[in-house]
Amino acid sequence: MFKNGTDNRRAFLKKSLAIGGAAGTTMLASGAGADTPDPLITEIQDWNRYLGEGVDSRPYGMPSPFEGDVVRRDVAWLTADAKASVNFTPLHKLEGIITPNGLCFERHHGGIAQISPEDHRIMINGLVDNPLVFTMEDLKRFPRHSEFYFLECAANTGMEWRGAQLNGCQFTHGMVHNVMYTGVKLKDLLAEAGVKPSGKWVLPEGADASHMTRSIPMEKALEDCMVAFAMNGEALRAEQGYPVRLVVPGWEGNMWVKWLRRLEVGDQPWHHREETSKYTDLLGDGRSRRFTWTMDVKSVITSPSPQAPINHGRGRTVITGLAWSGFGKIDRVDVSIDGGRNWHTARLDGPSLSKSLHRFYHEFDWDGSELFLQSRAIDEQRHVQKTKNALRKIRGENSIYHNNAIQTWHVKPDGLVENVEIS
Amino acid sequence: MFKNGTDNRRAFLKKSLAIGGAAGTTMLASGAGADTPDPLITEIQDWNRYLGEGVDSRPYGMPSPFEGDVVRRDVAWLTADAKASVNFTPLHKLEGIITPNGLCFERHHGGIAQISPEDHRIMINGLVDNPLVFTMEDLKRFPRHSEFYFLECAANTGMEWRGAQLNGCQFTHGMVHNVMYTGVKLKDLLAEAGVKPSGKWVLPEGADASHMTRSIPMEKALEDCMVAFAMNGEALRAEQGYPVRLVVPGWEGNMWVKWLRRLEVGDQPWHHREETSKYTDLLGDGRSRRFTWTMDVKSVITSPSPQAPINHGRGRTVITGLAWSGFGKIDRVDVSIDGGRNWHTARLDGPSLSKSLHRFYHEFDWDGSELFLQSRAIDEQRHVQKTKNALRKIRGENSIYHNNAIQTWHVKPDGLVENVEIS
Repeated sequence: MFKNGTDNRRAFLKKSLAIGGAAGTTMLASGAGADTPDPLITEIQDWNRYLGEGVDSRPYGMPSPFEGDVVRRDVAWLTADAKASVNFTPLHKLEGIITPNGLCFERHHGGIAQISPEDHRIMINGLVDNPLVFTMEDLKRFPRHSEFYFLECAANTGMEWRGAQLNGCQFTHGMVHNVMYTGVKLKDLLAEAGVKPSGKWVLPEGADASHMTRSIPMEKALEDCMVAFAMNGEALRAEQGYPVRLVVPGWEGNMWVKWLRRLEVGDQPWHHREETSKYTDLLGDGRSRRFTWTMDVKSVITSPSPQAPINHGRGRTVITGLAWSGFGKIDRVDVSIDGGRNWHTARLDGPSLSKSLHRFYHEFDWDGSELFLQSRAIDEQRHVQKTKNALRKIRGENSIYHNNAIQTWHVKPDGLVENVEIS
Repeated sequence: MFKNGTDNRRAFLKKSLAIGGAAGTTMLASGAGADTPDPLITEIQDWNRYLGEGVDSRPYGMPSPFEGDVVRRDVAWLTADAKASVNFTPLHKLEGIITPNGLCFERHHGGIAQISPEDHRIMINGLVDNPLVFTMEDLKRFPRHSEFYFLECAANTGMEWRGAQLNGCQFTHGMVHNVMYTGVKLKDLLAEAGVKPSGKWVLPEGADASHMTRSIPMEKALEDCMVAFAMNGEALRAEQGYPVRLVVPGWEGNMWVKWLRRLEVGDQPWHHREETSKYTDLLGDGRSRRFTWTMDVKSVITSPSPQAPINHGRGRTVITGLAWSGFGKIDRVDVSIDGGRNWHTARLDGPSLSKSLHRFYHEFDWDGSELFLQSRAIDEQRHVQKTKNALRKIRGENSIYHNNAIQTWHVKPDGLVENVEIS
């Protein structure tokens, strides 16, 4: 009656040599061919034979050593100083919609502040009835809420305005991550302080050496902003503002002030450095757009992509990518394999959440010819992602920020993939 | 016009000394009293003054050093050998519904197999038209899907059958975690192999030294089982079955075979060791329940709890916890602060997903008297969590498995919390 697995496997292999890996409706040859039984399936391996490490080996676990290439990376020529620099999320290696905390891209203006939660204070001052100072413990006595939100740097894809430059979606689109935040509603804290009728703007300020500040209209502060102390279930990571950061759903990342220490209420915007000389879009005619807060509808194919080539040859192939919009949910994603001539409606997978990443797929049979892969997202407010040239016509080529253009990947017959631009 | 944060903070403190942390409607004193300005808010700190570490310091990030106590823990007396043992998720420190991969509890029968994805094979054999062998790459050519599911060990809370034993929800309830899995549907793989009409059961087998096997009815295999290679966006962790595991939503954890190497299709259950002498519920009358697959409706208050005492004294207090059911979504959670005499409907927060953890909250004003905290979950199929005594009347005290009874925490006037049982 009882046969152990190895007996069963040997019996099966004696009986039948018709082994083949498969995908979709087309049966495909795998490494284990019919005439040469694969010792990896016919023979007992060390990991079948010997006990592995026990549960006491890693109180806080880390990825498998075989996943050592799934890491944040920087681009040496982009910035001279790592303390005021950026690294990128390895989107090409991720699945689903969650970014693991250890892989969330970083952008610092003054390096990573290391702050003990016991020593941290948050002040609310300005046009309020009761100026207040909160400890972290005070904060956690307010009602808590959890929400998934993407955080995208305004400069994400910024290097691509003037042509295809960076060879990998980690570098072209990796200044975005998506986690579940837990915290308290900013409106609850402001209610506690009592905003005066003249209070129309909020200035969050960071406790790090860069003292980051941004002006946020009161309407947004009361709508959905959060003062968050956890991400993906655990405390914020130091590089994401531990012990507490502002969450400004759908709006550009640098407004999500990290190491949040102060919220000032005022009657007009402050026009500080990071909202005037920086993080402002310079147009073709020399004028600037003021207050480009919302991150526009956007998508990118994460695989195949330059860092994730097709290495299985022709046949059934999975195209996958991410789509998001600061205006709400994604309504539809289209995928093209011929550079935008023909479009296929992609399959949206997983929960569809507002101001969160959405995962899409398009499965097709690759005939081995060259492809020009594109994706085009449409959000629930009917914003549609534009081509690079259409976007340039409107905004010129002087900007670094808010490039949400359609990305093109060129797949060559050998399966290698390159960042290209097609007219 | 422009004032930097420190100027502003000093000006504010000169103008007004009415500083106080606050929570809810009651203004509460914080560390920064009105007459003794807190240097942590009035003075410039090192982290405001000096640049921190840059982006090149951690390609794969880790938690803040201040979070060093948020780790998996084992219980020395529970098992002699760490290689066939268990550790526990620190539920008392987590927020929201996601368990970070590094904190997901582990349960091994033969230690952690370390398998290179290139060397891994998955076989489908038995009552199928086309026995097949897949490489990991073959697998990823099938349509992928992502879903949040809880995974609970059948023995979770097992030590509590005979009375309150373990002082902390990490130990009483920490054999559960909740992640977003990405993989392919088992039904797609079975369709590829072609299940014969006589094929009514599936036997997944692990590639580790324990060769774990369990019998799964075909109906469940086709309903929602997944062959998963990613969790929370990245590859499975080694201790969770890297490179590939079975996902059996809502059913007991040991059926979610890790390091999955074989799926055999048969016409009847196999009655192997882990579904007969182990993972079977012995009833009071000496008989056993057969096939107790589904994890019943359950909840636990994670804070306050023995490892998360109330340390802020009286006043506004947040009770939070987790609820889940193998039968679907959670419909309602009730919370009692007086040992089940009076019940309050808790606030369910975040997305409500089937066979996933749900986060609940109950905020109240603590008067400093002793409390007996309980939570009671009700799922969408109207299953209701029972008291321990009610459950014992049905199932006796011989079992280790499937204890989904209501948990009681005793909060003492000093805020310390203990695991107790009340009749």
